[in-house]
Amino acid sequence: MSGCELCEIVGGELVWQDEACRVVRVDGAEGADFPGFCRVIWQRHVREMSDLTDAERRHLMTVVFAVELALRELCQPDKINLASLGNVTPHVHWHVIPRWQDDRNFPAPIWAEPRRPDHVARPAPSLEALRTRVSATISAEQGGGH
Amino acid sequence: MSGCELCEIVGGELVWQDEACRVVRVDGAEGADFPGFCRVIWQRHVREMSDLTDAERRHLMTVVFAVELALRELCQPDKINLASLGNVTPHVHWHVIPRWQDDRNFPAPIWAEPRRPDHVARPAPSLEALRTRVSATISAEQGGGH
Repeated sequence: MSGCELCEIVGGELVWQDEACRVVRVDGAEGADFPGFCRVIWQRHVREMSDLTDAERRHLMTVVFAVELALRELCQPDKINLASLGNVTPHVHWHVIPRWQDDRNFPAPIWAEPRRPDHVARPAPSLEALRTRVSATISAEQGGGH
Repeated sequence: MSGCELCEIVGGELVWQDEACRVVRVDGAEGADFPGFCRVIWQRHVREMSDLTDAERRHLMTVVFAVELALRELCQPDKINLASLGNVTPHVHWHVIPRWQDDRNFPAPIWAEPRRPDHVARPAPSLEALRTRVSATISAEQGGGH
């Protein structure tokens, strides 16, 4: 859709994609503070999850949960946060955010006032490691889950 | 699990439940600020979505998306926000939050610093209306989606 950021740009470093959705690594300050932070973006402009068909939702969530699993394996976070908000950019996308007890905001959500503005985050996984692990996990999950 | 709030209390006004999960209406200030705000809580103590089996995840998400659809129909919000965080209470639960352009925080997430601390929220849907609509929507979605 014209004027929609997620229709016009990739929205991060591309990790994986198919015709329906793409996985990107979040760049900038958010990505630096929460290393491994990825977004899963529906390719078509759709506003709400309940605007997708049942099969489309299932496909998207399989990818979201596969990214969660890949990030748990790669980054060993203390918790994973998942969110689909879209108040600023109403184009379906999921935040998959690794969290650590000593991160900038823990245990508050990443959108709250920082509790540790001076924290030093872990190094981010390399794009290559992320691509390899995410692709393998999506293939495995699409093969029937566990 | 002993010491887990969501293992020990219902966590709101019960709207719907089965053996696997329950839907509650959020009480208190959050519920007053975001009328219709519901949580979908997995009955068993599980930490992450990727700790559930594929069938369990699919069941839970069918309920989450049915609650989203019911809230869209009942409350006509400008946007729905979905989130599974669990940093404070690491027991799988989903926030399903109706948002309006003039609500306390829009377009920021509800966990950010309030932009309109003096806003007056809409009245919440009655528990009866919520129960009727959520039950009907879950039954319809479990019948195969759309």
